[in-house]
Amino acid sequence: MFKYGNSGFVKREFSKHSSLLKEEIDKISKTKMYQNPRGFVNLPADSKYVNRVKAVIREKQKLNPSLVVVIGIGGSNLGAQAVVEAVFGKKQINLNPKILFADTVDPDDLKPCLGIAEKILKADKNIILNVISKSGTTTETIANFEIFLDLLSKYKIPTPYVVVTSDKDSKLWAYGKKHRFSLLEVPKNVGGRFSVFSAVGLFPLGMLGIDLDDFLLGAKDMVKNCLNKSLLDNPAAVNAFVIYQNFLNNKIIYDTFLFSKDLEYLGKWYRQLLGESIGKNSKVGITPTVSIGTIDLHSVAQLYLAGPDDKLTNFVKTRFNAEISLPKIKEFDKLVKNIQGIKLSKIMDAVYKGTILAFKKHKRSFTETVLPDKTPYSIAAFMQWKMIEIVLLARLLNVNAFNQPNVESYKKETRKLLRK
Amino acid sequence: MFKYGNSGFVKREFSKHSSLLKEEIDKISKTKMYQNPRGFVNLPADSKYVNRVKAVIREKQKLNPSLVVVIGIGGSNLGAQAVVEAVFGKKQINLNPKILFADTVDPDDLKPCLGIAEKILKADKNIILNVISKSGTTTETIANFEIFLDLLSKYKIPTPYVVVTSDKDSKLWAYGKKHRFSLLEVPKNVGGRFSVFSAVGLFPLGMLGIDLDDFLLGAKDMVKNCLNKSLLDNPAAVNAFVIYQNFLNNKIIYDTFLFSKDLEYLGKWYRQLLGESIGKNSKVGITPTVSIGTIDLHSVAQLYLAGPDDKLTNFVKTRFNAEISLPKIKEFDKLVKNIQGIKLSKIMDAVYKGTILAFKKHKRSFTETVLPDKTPYSIAAFMQWKMIEIVLLARLLNVNAFNQPNVESYKKETRKLLRK
Repeated sequence: MFKYGNSGFVKREFSKHSSLLKEEIDKISKTKMYQNPRGFVNLPADSKYVNRVKAVIREKQKLNPSLVVVIGIGGSNLGAQAVVEAVFGKKQINLNPKILFADTVDPDDLKPCLGIAEKILKADKNIILNVISKSGTTTETIANFEIFLDLLSKYKIPTPYVVVTSDKDSKLWAYGKKHRFSLLEVPKNVGGRFSVFSAVGLFPLGMLGIDLDDFLLGAKDMVKNCLNKSLLDNPAAVNAFVIYQNFLNNKIIYDTFLFSKDLEYLGKWYRQLLGESIGKNSKVGITPTVSIGTIDLHSVAQLYLAGPDDKLTNFVKTRFNAEISLPKIKEFDKLVKNIQGIKLSKIMDAVYKGTILAFKKHKRSFTETVLPDKTPYSIAAFMQWKMIEIVLLARLLNVNAFNQPNVESYKKETRKLLRK
Repeated sequence: MFKYGNSGFVKREFSKHSSLLKEEIDKISKTKMYQNPRGFVNLPADSKYVNRVKAVIREKQKLNPSLVVVIGIGGSNLGAQAVVEAVFGKKQINLNPKILFADTVDPDDLKPCLGIAEKILKADKNIILNVISKSGTTTETIANFEIFLDLLSKYKIPTPYVVVTSDKDSKLWAYGKKHRFSLLEVPKNVGGRFSVFSAVGLFPLGMLGIDLDDFLLGAKDMVKNCLNKSLLDNPAAVNAFVIYQNFLNNKIIYDTFLFSKDLEYLGKWYRQLLGESIGKNSKVGITPTVSIGTIDLHSVAQLYLAGPDDKLTNFVKTRFNAEISLPKIKEFDKLVKNIQGIKLSKIMDAVYKGTILAFKKHKRSFTETVLPDKTPYSIAAFMQWKMIEIVLLARLLNVNAFNQPNVESYKKETRKLLRK
């Protein structure tokens, strides 16, 4: 799945860091349940927890909803959205139930979402509201929840249609309990950006009919690979080290260059994971960027190939579900040679390989990830790999992967302004 | 429209560069028609050219199309897509005709597009294909054009439904002429990323009913502001200088942080403009990033506020079209204070201001752009401002804004691979 082509990986250097990496892997392995933030790795195998989520999914599926509205922002929605787009495609045609992510208080974004929801309610069909906030006090989430709840209440008694996903002792939890909404717990020590295998991801994904066992198996299998103490066979350890070494070598930007439009949100999910976990002080922080092939070759390739050598690129290549062949129109051969009658995936592949060769020629640092396909299994494996990688990278860089001490800063100012 | 809050702008330093800036502004001003790449500034006032585009729009509107398919990549589609999303919203509900951008050969992206087009053709409704390639030899574009043309031909004689936008002497142009498709010229010296006011942008936007006069007026008015020789009142000159000074000061990342989801593609359009125009060699290149408020405050704020101080951020704030008020549910006051009954735009505004204050507190470099609204006029003004800014910035950095010499690199490798 992972290749470390042109990333300057040196086994000897890697070995020097092995005790540190092993120590952290040991810590992760020994974490019982959710006793500390490393416990996120235990979610996929926590069958008691998963069964509780599944039970709620079964209960809500019986209501035969036409729409699931996920109300959450950042870690509360990026993971599920990434999986939905990867598995069902960015355009999500013919999805039943449909899904909407209400992830900001931008009224021009919310208005059409409300329109869709109201149309469904008017037709006497059902919607499920899934409000997700670990703290239960995220301004955007609570605001949107109120608006959707208000809409729903105009058409139905909301009790069976609302699912609250939150910390067990949050005020939102208490509110949900009082109103007899369904309650799904996010274990206290599981941080938002590490929560995709908790109810945060599982409930919406299960509602859309994604096979959660398959999804969780991808994560479990990857846990095995990544807690492997033969470090050279451990993709999380090796990649954490590659990013670390490149960062020391002034590759302060990490670009996830996905050759698949449907994976853009997987890139955005990882962007949060890297940005927030590692960006801790003036000396430590890597700016994550997301590029999409082949589109962005026509937008930033000039900069990436010839500009300042400040990036490490992780190319991600995958298999496509659809197959489309070009017609054979001889006349077009004059415009672009050698593509008549061939498959689009073959063109994608040629552009991918051409890009790799150009990066090599320009001596740009990159790694390659081959994602076998866009099934829930593979996407989950990718996510689990990346989460463990980030924990190891944080250890190498000696920062706390699990907090975000400076985010409070704008929130405090915002609260002051709202008081006026 | 533009504020230079915390960007370290020093008038005296600016004055030192005034002769260089004036010289370039002079060059832009004196460019007759399209005699050199600076000629893009002349497009909005070129009524003869615009009228030709309008005539084709009127002709195609008579066919009463249900769908416009824009086939193009990079500079050939980002501009129009940015305007469409800004004006009609990212979700583009109830748009008639609808618009699709076929901008890559990813089969999983193209398949649903083809499905939509075929459904329309089957219902005996019309689609317009607008294929856009300056060179006429862009692999992705030609491939997609063939596929859509093939589909269209199964239902109709394609002649009146195809519009070719290209250089007048490209092979695509010759092909279009032979088949009696409508032809729209992109002036030879107008580069892709500077072409939004040519037929590249105007045709699709006009087809959707956008008032092109209003759109072009925004651009024309901005030309006046930006070719102003009172440099301190020239937003392009001042902002080019701010970016330049910050770059010298190691702000090697330029983040466009838009507090509006509908403006994400405007950010992506600018990303190409900055990346490709300025990223010229190992010493000169600024990595453009795009962030969306309030979403990305929950994803990268930690990094932006406290991580390495290597970014200049341009916050973009705008007015929303919709207005949504929160219900007054007293109980919710326990979860988030002071938002009961208020408008979402007021929350957006408080978060925006809170973010600005936090950036100040953390001594992060930023500028502010107030986009009065998301009308065609304002979006065009923004785009024209940014294009002139980039030309001036390139001059300060002593690079050629108009070429992309290293992009050929991956294309060459790709062609070799396709030959096999």
